[in-house]
Amino acid sequence: MKESSNLLFDLVLFGGTGDLSMRKLLPALYQLYRTTPFHASTRIIAVGRTAPSKEAFLHRVQDKLEQHLPQDSWDTVSWQQFAKHLNCVSIEADKTESYRNLIPLLSEDQRPRVFYFSTHSSLYATIASSLGALGLITPCARVVLEKPIGRDLNTARNISGQMSNYFTESQIYRIDHYLGKETVQNLLVLRFANPLFESLWNHHYIDHIQITISESIGVESRGEFYEETGALRDIVQNHLLQLLCILAMEPPPNIEPDRIRDEKLKVLYALKPLLGDDIARSVVRGQYSAGAIKGKDCIGYTEEEGVSEHSTIETFVAMKVMIDNMRWSGVPFYLRTGKRLPSRSCEIVVQFKEIPHWIFDTVRGQLMSNQLVITLQPDESITLRLCGKRLGPGMDVRTVDLNLNPNSRGNKRSADAYERLLLDVVKGDQTLFVRQDELEQAWHWIDPILLDWESTTSPPEYYACGSWGPAGSTLLLAKDGRLWHEGATG
Amino acid sequence: MKESSNLLFDLVLFGGTGDLSMRKLLPALYQLYRTTPFHASTRIIAVGRTAPSKEAFLHRVQDKLEQHLPQDSWDTVSWQQFAKHLNCVSIEADKTESYRNLIPLLSEDQRPRVFYFSTHSSLYATIASSLGALGLITPCARVVLEKPIGRDLNTARNISGQMSNYFTESQIYRIDHYLGKETVQNLLVLRFANPLFESLWNHHYIDHIQITISESIGVESRGEFYEETGALRDIVQNHLLQLLCILAMEPPPNIEPDRIRDEKLKVLYALKPLLGDDIARSVVRGQYSAGAIKGKDCIGYTEEEGVSEHSTIETFVAMKVMIDNMRWSGVPFYLRTGKRLPSRSCEIVVQFKEIPHWIFDTVRGQLMSNQLVITLQPDESITLRLCGKRLGPGMDVRTVDLNLNPNSRGNKRSADAYERLLLDVVKGDQTLFVRQDELEQAWHWIDPILLDWESTTSPPEYYACGSWGPAGSTLLLAKDGRLWHEGATG
Repeated sequence: MKESSNLLFDLVLFGGTGDLSMRKLLPALYQLYRTTPFHASTRIIAVGRTAPSKEAFLHRVQDKLEQHLPQDSWDTVSWQQFAKHLNCVSIEADKTESYRNLIPLLSEDQRPRVFYFSTHSSLYATIASSLGALGLITPCARVVLEKPIGRDLNTARNISGQMSNYFTESQIYRIDHYLGKETVQNLLVLRFANPLFESLWNHHYIDHIQITISESIGVESRGEFYEETGALRDIVQNHLLQLLCILAMEPPPNIEPDRIRDEKLKVLYALKPLLGDDIARSVVRGQYSAGAIKGKDCIGYTEEEGVSEHSTIETFVAMKVMIDNMRWSGVPFYLRTGKRLPSRSCEIVVQFKEIPHWIFDTVRGQLMSNQLVITLQPDESITLRLCGKRLGPGMDVRTVDLNLNPNSRGNKRSADAYERLLLDVVKGDQTLFVRQDELEQAWHWIDPILLDWESTTSPPEYYACGSWGPAGSTLLLAKDGRLWHEGATG
Repeated sequence: MKESSNLLFDLVLFGGTGDLSMRKLLPALYQLYRTTPFHASTRIIAVGRTAPSKEAFLHRVQDKLEQHLPQDSWDTVSWQQFAKHLNCVSIEADKTESYRNLIPLLSEDQRPRVFYFSTHSSLYATIASSLGALGLITPCARVVLEKPIGRDLNTARNISGQMSNYFTESQIYRIDHYLGKETVQNLLVLRFANPLFESLWNHHYIDHIQITISESIGVESRGEFYEETGALRDIVQNHLLQLLCILAMEPPPNIEPDRIRDEKLKVLYALKPLLGDDIARSVVRGQYSAGAIKGKDCIGYTEEEGVSEHSTIETFVAMKVMIDNMRWSGVPFYLRTGKRLPSRSCEIVVQFKEIPHWIFDTVRGQLMSNQLVITLQPDESITLRLCGKRLGPGMDVRTVDLNLNPNSRGNKRSADAYERLLLDVVKGDQTLFVRQDELEQAWHWIDPILLDWESTTSPPEYYACGSWGPAGSTLLLAKDGRLWHEGATG
């Protein structure tokens, strides 16, 4: 490959010595480097409050890469080449003068200059204003914002307002790493390239849709952060609503970034508002109490470090969401997320309506219904569940699972979500990033629930670590005569 | 297993020393024996004009089994046990007295007594009348009739009339071994157990359907038989129309044999008649001329033994069939069969309509359309062809083939069609057998084409051995802007 076609960019990583950077961003950049070589002058600059020496930093990154990368991705030669692109620098977020440390490390040419804000969103404005004050935000600059952006509509609007003083909307990349997953993009192709799915993708044929994001970990060392966030802000407002948008959106006229984001926004506009009594009826708020996961004892949320012993913050949310439009009228979307659940997973189940009349002798159970099961974690896969004939005499019906998993077809590695998204930022493709109006509309829909919970004196429903959440979650579907997917499969 | 639950029957195989018996029926019975043990007194009696000694007969059967069975199906112990059930006997079809040879071999209890007529259909009435004269057709008797039954509506009706003097309709099993194939029955389950397919199985979503039965062999030693038969009678009137009925039938209210056969009959009633000029427009009549298949020279049909050098008998038929009902209006069914084509295959292609609007950058080719491809020969399989995302950055679309093949799931052997159907005869299940009214309606629809061809002076279209038939066949679809399936895949 000619040097001129190699990836040329400067990337400044605020929070660059932090957890996300070490576990996800730097490994993703290393993987990107291995598939798409960097131009010799490409630079990655990790920013920390008190950054270690370059040598110590490189040692730490190397340790983390060896720890977090799949074994077959690591090789010492690539690492040594990759490390030449790495730098680190000390900046105190609130001291504009300290940003001058960046200047000698940035190139002066027209290459993409990416500022990645992997910090608390309350720091975004501060960082942007210092960068602006020093003239570092050139026309070729881009900024990547990590979620959650704000803690309600008002704070999100403030951040938007402040960012817009320094960046145009086309320079702002609000990242939601679920959108970077191969399988989420495959879902768009499946929906819009196949008449088989496109024709059935509406209330006539779909019974309901479930989306679950479960974690087995608790709040770990992030008790303080979690106390002011909770599951609704941490997962529902962004990841779950984004996945819902991808599933529910109308076909766009083309796949230009803004045409896709227009359609996602329309879904958010069509979400039936949850107000007043609807909230108690349609939303379950849970908090984990002591229990055990896979035989290992776990403490309750209020016993965690940094958490108030009287905290009513939710670590679990289940909700029934309706979309008031022609396509989805009457089709519930059940969303669920929680910490300290039995396993880490992200799964979407599209449940088709049952066949109107059953002619076979085999007893028809819930398992027999057609389903599209899309798994994003721990491994990505798409399974189409159909009915087929059981081999042999007679006409017994059994379930057949067809695997649409791209990973099982050929040995090509599926890019990590961050790897894909970082490449898109460098290339200037905003398709898989959240637009300001989407962000604000999501908060607009979430705000009444936040307010309701803040004003209530009733405690969350408690659930034991290692269970699938409080009884209310099961009841939410049982009222509609349905079950959560894992309830059916054990 | 208790002896009482073992299969108890007497089976008399007319034409029992012939080709079909040796290649198909006896191997199928042996396989059936291995999966479903026979009662000790179950008897299989092969009838021949001049049957060999029992010893010589067993030797011949053993040779054929070893030759035609898959290697892992053959074992000497099973064979020796199975051979104890075998007998052979000499009967001259037109000499009633000779049928007395059967009497000592038949049991007198109420077990199913199956007469299998694997002879030319002109002998059916003769055999039935001799069996009747000797009182061998008891209430527990059944008769299996091989196709083609008759050579037009009139002769088929005659045979029906004669058979009905000795057997009730519930005793008559008109066999079409394509219906015994696992995959054909699976098709019923796929259609009627899956809303995903059931909802789309109509003119709104299906563009057209192709059914091909191709052979690479010529007429072999059966030149004389073929001269008075031809492809229309040999394959189209039975196999192709039966497969069309299974594909096109309305959902029955249940899977009782007559409810399924009612629905198949309704399809035959709805076939748009091919009359007058329609025949030339919609039906292609071909005959093979000298050529080569896989590098091996083949002679033309008129050079075959037993064939007139001026013969205009068709060895190839392609036709466009329309079904005049609410479900299928405007959807062509293209049927095709021929000898000396490049390979032996039986394939059904259900081609769904294209997605109305294509939003992806990938160029959409014919290959990208959704298809259900059902293969019955040489191996059985069902493949659902969808579009998915090509792994990697961007949104490239590629074709993904999902395999619904029952054989690839677990190691359970799929029963041979004859094995399944013989078991059904013994059990008294007529689901997969053709009813008299179906047979006659199929001939009713075929007759005008036969008459037209008999009255024409124009020769058939010639095609070289090893080609996919005459140019007219390609043209038949090209006029509609379509291609035969192998044209797309090479």
